[in-house]
Amino acid sequence: MIVVMKKGADQKQIDHMVERIASLGLKPHVIVGTERTVIAAIGEKRPDHKESLESGPGVAEVVKILAPYKVASREVKPESTVVTAGSFTAGGDTIGVIAGPCSVESEEQIIACAKAVKAAGGTALRGGAFKPRTSPYSFQGLKERGLEMLAAARAETGLAVVTEVVASEDTELVARYADILQIGARNMQNYRLLEAVGKAGKPVLLKRGPSATMDELLLAAEYILDAGNPDVMLCERGIRTFEAHTRFTLPLASVPFLKQKTHLPVIVDPSHGTGHAYLVPDMTAASVAVGADGLIVEIHPDPENALSDGYQTLNFDEFAATMKRCRQIAEALGRRM
Amino acid sequence: MIVVMKKGADQKQIDHMVERIASLGLKPHVIVGTERTVIAAIGEKRPDHKESLESGPGVAEVVKILAPYKVASREVKPESTVVTAGSFTAGGDTIGVIAGPCSVESEEQIIACAKAVKAAGGTALRGGAFKPRTSPYSFQGLKERGLEMLAAARAETGLAVVTEVVASEDTELVARYADILQIGARNMQNYRLLEAVGKAGKPVLLKRGPSATMDELLLAAEYILDAGNPDVMLCERGIRTFEAHTRFTLPLASVPFLKQKTHLPVIVDPSHGTGHAYLVPDMTAASVAVGADGLIVEIHPDPENALSDGYQTLNFDEFAATMKRCRQIAEALGRRM
Amino acid sequence: MIVVMKKGADQKQIDHMVERIASLGLKPHVIVGTERTVIAAIGEKRPDHKESLESGPGVAEVVKILAPYKVASREVKPESTVVTAGSFTAGGDTIGVIAGPCSVESEEQIIACAKAVKAAGGTALRGGAFKPRTSPYSFQGLKERGLEMLAAARAETGLAVVTEVVASEDTELVARYADILQIGARNMQNYRLLEAVGKAGKPVLLKRGPSATMDELLLAAEYILDAGNPDVMLCERGIRTFEAHTRFTLPLASVPFLKQKTHLPVIVDPSHGTGHAYLVPDMTAASVAVGADGLIVEIHPDPENALSDGYQTLNFDEFAATMKRCRQIAEALGRRM
Amino acid sequence: MIVVMKKGADQKQIDHMVERIASLGLKPHVIVGTERTVIAAIGEKRPDHKESLESGPGVAEVVKILAPYKVASREVKPESTVVTAGSFTAGGDTIGVIAGPCSVESEEQIIACAKAVKAAGGTALRGGAFKPRTSPYSFQGLKERGLEMLAAARAETGLAVVTEVVASEDTELVARYADILQIGARNMQNYRLLEAVGKAGKPVLLKRGPSATMDELLLAAEYILDAGNPDVMLCERGIRTFEAHTRFTLPLASVPFLKQKTHLPVIVDPSHGTGHAYLVPDMTAASVAVGADGLIVEIHPDPENALSDGYQTLNFDEFAATMKRCRQIAEALGRRM
Repeated sequence: MIVVMKKGADQKQIDHMVERIASLGLKPHVIVGTERTVIAAIGEKRPDHKESLESGPGVAEVVKILAPYKVASREVKPESTVVTAGSFTAGGDTIGVIAGPCSVESEEQIIACAKAVKAAGGTALRGGAFKPRTSPYSFQGLKERGLEMLAAARAETGLAVVTEVVASEDTELVARYADILQIGARNMQNYRLLEAVGKAGKPVLLKRGPSATMDELLLAAEYILDAGNPDVMLCERGIRTFEAHTRFTLPLASVPFLKQKTHLPVIVDPSHGTGHAYLVPDMTAASVAVGADGLIVEIHPDPENALSDGYQTLNFDEFAATMKRCRQIAEALGRRM
Repeated sequence: MIVVMKKGADQKQIDHMVERIASLGLKPHVIVGTERTVIAAIGEKRPDHKESLESGPGVAEVVKILAPYKVASREVKPESTVVTAGSFTAGGDTIGVIAGPCSVESEEQIIACAKAVKAAGGTALRGGAFKPRTSPYSFQGLKERGLEMLAAARAETGLAVVTEVVASEDTELVARYADILQIGARNMQNYRLLEAVGKAGKPVLLKRGPSATMDELLLAAEYILDAGNPDVMLCERGIRTFEAHTRFTLPLASVPFLKQKTHLPVIVDPSHGTGHAYLVPDMTAASVAVGADGLIVEIHPDPENALSDGYQTLNFDEFAATMKRCRQIAEALGRRM
Repeated sequence: MIVVMKKGADQKQIDHMVERIASLGLKPHVIVGTERTVIAAIGEKRPDHKESLESGPGVAEVVKILAPYKVASREVKPESTVVTAGSFTAGGDTIGVIAGPCSVESEEQIIACAKAVKAAGGTALRGGAFKPRTSPYSFQGLKERGLEMLAAARAETGLAVVTEVVASEDTELVARYADILQIGARNMQNYRLLEAVGKAGKPVLLKRGPSATMDELLLAAEYILDAGNPDVMLCERGIRTFEAHTRFTLPLASVPFLKQKTHLPVIVDPSHGTGHAYLVPDMTAASVAVGADGLIVEIHPDPENALSDGYQTLNFDEFAATMKRCRQIAEALGRRM
Repeated sequence: MIVVMKKGADQKQIDHMVERIASLGLKPHVIVGTERTVIAAIGEKRPDHKESLESGPGVAEVVKILAPYKVASREVKPESTVVTAGSFTAGGDTIGVIAGPCSVESEEQIIACAKAVKAAGGTALRGGAFKPRTSPYSFQGLKERGLEMLAAARAETGLAVVTEVVASEDTELVARYADILQIGARNMQNYRLLEAVGKAGKPVLLKRGPSATMDELLLAAEYILDAGNPDVMLCERGIRTFEAHTRFTLPLASVPFLKQKTHLPVIVDPSHGTGHAYLVPDMTAASVAVGADGLIVEIHPDPENALSDGYQTLNFDEFAATMKRCRQIAEALGRRM
């Protein structure tokens, strides 16, 4: 950490901060500049002293030098993590493709989706059984019945099942049916839930909250990793910005950024990331080109009659065409999909 | 709802949408414009058909006319809700003042804070016992011991106690000690938790998520109201924007906006809303001037040594001076504080 | 336009608005809903009455149905515009590639860049002679001498020259040397300048302002088109959001969005859009995959010693490798580059 | 400046950066931490080396310690600047109040406005003669005739006149009529224009661009100050965020922030800052409470029939009531208005 003193800070304030840094077990190192004094604090393991130093007398600001996450960091584990769950693999050379409806609506619907996913070359089936909905008056999912239908679709097609868990008390139930547990964007900082999936023994797909910074996303992953679960995939699904022509803004630069900072696989969700079906194929192709380790795409046999998210959902033909285009790009870049 | 057709939409597509609107129990009304056709859908109770209509053939966009929340709406209940909990009242002519430390650290600390709150004219004590922290390595709160200390401070001063509940399974425990249950910004869309506090029989202080729209905030309140709890206070605590000189951007216009849309009291949190102690007094004064029904401010006997949030925390003297200034503004505007 | 009345609007207010709509030459059409009345205003040519209707008595909001731009709209001209300037073409099947240094620094430097652009398959040379800089103390460009050096590089390589014009009074001078006039992001709404380049007889590369909406960008293009210049290219170069790990957030979904709304070619600038050289190759590849009609990339023989923007600038080898990757993606998608 | 090296940076890279810092005339000071090495660069006058150091080998990031602006800084001039222009004063104990219509429409209209401003206690008259409009099809202002009408209103009431200049070539003309030159938000980074008003010999009201950071705003002021004009007022008028219920988000914390960083007066524009007339009175009151040195408010005798911005414009009665409320708050805070 670097403690930057205010221009007018006096010797007493500087001495105070030197002492305080030492009392935290760090080695203070004073550098007297032409206009200001800064104090380097050497030896910290985790940057959790920033907050308390910031309120010291005469302090202008405190600059962190180290990243606040550890286990997620590529500095700690340079080789890329590959996550595998049944039919699904993401990371390294392999791009994993998860697709399916927003909500599980019926066994017929979910099995039709699973077959379409498999036919198009997808490797996992998504489908929501517990649905977090903005309005209390919207369809909230089929709950355990939905999980059973997902299991039926897996039995039929062999595809791994990805589904969301919305509360720590549901984790065990969902983990009995799912191959991969999804943490939704609204729950990225639901720490009790992160701890629960950290102990559930299944890989986790962790979605970025719409206003989460990269550090916050990686610290949320750190909660899961710290609880003992090494199989975490990060999912970029768009952020809240002033743009109104898309539902969220999908910042694809977070893919190469994250892949530099962390060893965890990075998945992209172009359906939520755009919020409009007509933008999904192009943004799916761009996700592959930018280096994503996986995709998660919403499809439905009849989007107009979907119980949720129809406006951002591809039909089976659109999905198959999109997959074909993505595969060409992946091959051009030397990846498997 | 207004369904706007694309410029080139043909009669078949228009007929399809007319039929579809009718099938939802709404009355379609076609208006042929010079360049486009729009179809008004009359009679809806709740705008939950927008999503499904948007994926119809030839549809350019669907415009909502009605607000998606009902019970929270001032159109449904024109008179302002006044929330009372022991020593605390917010709404109508009365501005409620909640203050206290970010975290409960010891009985001595929380009782000192409570006395300072009372001395300065505050009407409720805040203090975190269960702390949701961005990093798994940060101090996570004293949990039930912290709740006991809050109760001791209440016994000593008579101040109502406001504290956060972070998981639905903790609700009963926290509600045994607290007078007002706080839902933190990270949990604004933790619907299981909203339902739990909706049934807990205690008033709720619901903080706006940093990227939540006004509709999303009011729909989160709707979850609590719909579960049977009429005593919900909304709290503006700042949003994520590109600004980096404050921790969040505190958009005070949301106070008069919300007070027009809803009957619920609106509280402002200038501590989290700015993230810097030196900005808190001015923004607290502005919060009173803009018409807030309440304030929630972080104070600590020794901010530099606080276990969390010290950089945005006032000491007792700063808090007393701020309250004095606010009281003058409140009186100038004919309100009580 | 749809004028949405407030819930409690009375007949007098409704009559007033009906009359007002008629007085604007539009045909009012009243629809009485279950909870509210809306009035459709039919026949407008351009939606410039929204503002004045919004302040009418009893009006809740006014919803635009038509886009505010006309000449830029794909509804007016369905076939895609292809812009050609010497060696450079963008639009249709062809992806145009503009590259070069942020600033022209010397004849040697700009000719070296031009040769590197050509060798890697680029089709135009960029280079700033008039530099708009955030600080008055930063390097402001070589001005006319820089333009002469660009002309020398064109003479040497045959590449078309793209350079920025920052003030209407410079337009004639810059247009004497340049093949394509660039309007920088800071000047997207400098209307006097837009009018000037609209009359300059050279194609224009119009960069999106960092907080401009799509409508604002298209209306800025409309100023140029309306002044008589049909050869406008839109450039997505990133927006200001809360994200701090990139200099701007590059929202690639604006490419397919714009290509649906307008016939004008869409160019992407991954250098400014990310602000970090190590993110540029992946985001350039993603720009091609998402359907961009062109690219503009910063390169320099020695980025560490560039007079401006070195941190986001590729060296010649990095650029050549990036072009190779992009060409493979373009071919996989059936486009020429 | 602090140059932070990457974790794996080797001695050769460190030596290279040490040499490079020395070659810039700065004194390098190496600090070897437990995990990383950082190099302090001491003695810089202006932080314009950040960019070039950032692209050095092995460099993770470069942290600025000094602010990039100088003349605007309160560290350079601790006493607050008071700007006076005829009837108008802003700064120190005095809050200046500028009001008037968005556009000058007729002599009758502007004189009526001027009288209303004066009657309510305002101290300057605003009115646009040159209007920068988003659409080329919107009303663009009366130009020089508008300036003459403003002069007539000044002759009638004695109020100082504030009006916008949109192009450097108009500066002389506008300065002949105006007492204060306004730079609009769209032109905050039109550096040619900033230089022109820096030489025009009249005070300048500089509006913050909707995505400008505080540093960018202060550097824009620096252009004007550096050209020799000491009378610059900064105007907060709202930023672009995801919020859609207001036209812009008005972040009032920028007032106390700016007043700490700079000696220049800070004005608030609650009309553009909210975009809705019904929000203006409360946000004007909040602007006074937060410590603004001045206000700029849009008023019109008949907002519904205003040629521009009617939806955010107060009528004369609303303005008078707002001023009365603000004066009470100002008095409670010991300021004059």
